[in-house]
Amino acid sequence: MRRSGRKDLLLIALTQGTKVAGVFTQNRFCAAPVQVAKQHLASGRPIRALVVNTGNANAGTGKAGLADARASCERAAALLGCDPREVLPFSTGVIMEPLPLARIVAGLPACVADLREDNWARAAEAIMTTDTVAKARSRRAGGATVTGIAKGAGMIRPDMATMLGFVATDAAVSQAALERLVADAAAGSFNRVSVDGDTSTNDSFILLATGAAGRSDRSLLREAVLEVSQGLAQSIVRDGEGATKFITVRVEKGRSENECASVAYAIAHSPLVKTAFFASDPNLGRLLAAIGNSGVRGLDVDRVELYLDDVQVAMAGGRAGAYREEDGKRVMAKSEITVRVVLNRGKAATTVWTCDLSHEYVTINAEYRT
Amino acid sequence: MRRSGRKDLLLIALTQGTKVAGVFTQNRFCAAPVQVAKQHLASGRPIRALVVNTGNANAGTGKAGLADARASCERAAALLGCDPREVLPFSTGVIMEPLPLARIVAGLPACVADLREDNWARAAEAIMTTDTVAKARSRRAGGATVTGIAKGAGMIRPDMATMLGFVATDAAVSQAALERLVADAAAGSFNRVSVDGDTSTNDSFILLATGAAGRSDRSLLREAVLEVSQGLAQSIVRDGEGATKFITVRVEKGRSENECASVAYAIAHSPLVKTAFFASDPNLGRLLAAIGNSGVRGLDVDRVELYLDDVQVAMAGGRAGAYREEDGKRVMAKSEITVRVVLNRGKAATTVWTCDLSHEYVTINAEYRT
Repeated sequence: MRRSGRKDLLLIALTQGTKVAGVFTQNRFCAAPVQVAKQHLASGRPIRALVVNTGNANAGTGKAGLADARASCERAAALLGCDPREVLPFSTGVIMEPLPLARIVAGLPACVADLREDNWARAAEAIMTTDTVAKARSRRAGGATVTGIAKGAGMIRPDMATMLGFVATDAAVSQAALERLVADAAAGSFNRVSVDGDTSTNDSFILLATGAAGRSDRSLLREAVLEVSQGLAQSIVRDGEGATKFITVRVEKGRSENECASVAYAIAHSPLVKTAFFASDPNLGRLLAAIGNSGVRGLDVDRVELYLDDVQVAMAGGRAGAYREEDGKRVMAKSEITVRVVLNRGKAATTVWTCDLSHEYVTINAEYRT
Repeated sequence: MRRSGRKDLLLIALTQGTKVAGVFTQNRFCAAPVQVAKQHLASGRPIRALVVNTGNANAGTGKAGLADARASCERAAALLGCDPREVLPFSTGVIMEPLPLARIVAGLPACVADLREDNWARAAEAIMTTDTVAKARSRRAGGATVTGIAKGAGMIRPDMATMLGFVATDAAVSQAALERLVADAAAGSFNRVSVDGDTSTNDSFILLATGAAGRSDRSLLREAVLEVSQGLAQSIVRDGEGATKFITVRVEKGRSENECASVAYAIAHSPLVKTAFFASDPNLGRLLAAIGNSGVRGLDVDRVELYLDDVQVAMAGGRAGAYREEDGKRVMAKSEITVRVVLNRGKAATTVWTCDLSHEYVTINAEYRT
């Protein structure tokens, strides 16, 4: 698609009867393939295939982009003998450049020839862009299996889903239950990570259920789907562009999950907090400044407690009496750190996963198209 | 305060009858000196002096911080022979470390001995932290003069004012008019810049009017105050930590100034947009993605037009037909660039000034306390 010698085109063919549900980006410049995928899903027809390309996002491409996305569905449908509306298109890569449709058309026959049930690992590789590792997870759920792949490293602050995530199970699930499953899994996984606060135009998270393994215990399945999704979402943060640290931001005792998320994201999106983590510098006043910027109405900072792993950093509007710089330094030197904020004004809680901001992030994104 | 051999303490003494108005940070972890300055201003007493230190923000310092801020007012008041409530304290620097009050106390007598009417340039130097240049502006307004200084380079996304800005005029202005003047000037200057999206705990913008020059033409004065404030705010962006480019983001034909500002800030805060500017790479799809993330309800992206200086980049949901990569490259290579977004859904407009995100930003903020 963009560079020679790269795996960058993926075809997923679905066995007859597979149910499909998805959640998509809230970005108003929603990519052409996202618009087409939503239309095809909404039509209620069975979905028989997914076509995924990297290197080009087919976003900000206007009417020509929509035609290109539909054309890629038509070509895949012709090869597989199904209706074009039974194909979902996905793209990721550079925005506002025309989709090189001819390369997709040229590549699809090789994809069809290479269709295999155990091709998950190569599929995970085929959707990588700036990712440095392929991302895949699998769990058993009673008699069924849940397996998924995802891609993403930058432009990561999913608002419904991730850059691209595909999770499949052989459990039999009704369409309505599948739609609840995908929404709940997104809420607790892809919608709780951020690398750089930039929501992509192409975020899509798709859950497939073939039904081959029959009915599965609902709560076991739900747990497995969430676990696989969380594992994938966390692997995106660990592979965040230039990331050297994996940061868990846990916010507790808020009035609502929303306000906990506001505080968590204010921390996760602060360049000053992120550069302090990169430097392993316990310049933890930046965490207080970020909490103060979260926009939570009536937040009483005198009641806020701040912990770095097991170390209490702040309370009563200032530094905790027992806090010592050496303790902060010890935790900041680690590669996995938990920031815990206790708001002491309610019973809600949430967790967001993020990473630091390093020189490598600037390098990767300054040189992305070169 | 923090490093030896630095000018880092400023005392401003006001002639009797000077009126003072200010706007302050909306950060909930509002610094102790900000709390004290607001109390002293609200008391309605005449203000006779301002004490400003750098190196330590006295923020996130709890009750001890408030006592320290008050003590610095007391010491200045004792030296000047006024009431401590007639002194406003200001601090900027590291957050959540105790204010080294003894150093302020030790330094104030030298400040008193050095009080001079023409000390503006040294005053501008005394409030610098990571600033690389001193920031000062002066304009005539009829028979009066408006002169100001400011500091700031990082943690810049003022929500009421800038890190620290002090503007003075010898025009005679009523207290009510002065309060409108300071709010309007902040709205059109310090509240329209962003370096890194992080709102400081210590933002304060103070407008002083001595009255020595008598009544001045209201609209000339208003214009001069806005010009001086904009000049200072823009100088903060030009000196933004690691900044290599000065970006003007103009958003037009929105339904309200607020929604124009949301679009402008979505662009100004996107790390991906900022790294593209750093690289001089016309990866302009990132601008569309940022516009799409602005949270403007019902935004019809097909009506959005995007320009880079004189070059039309996007329209009708995609790249403009006449756009050529060479044109984008030509503009991106410049050190001052205007991004213009036309929403085509109303009559409101606004302008935000920002800068790029470079390696140097990461270096400065990774090494800030070392």
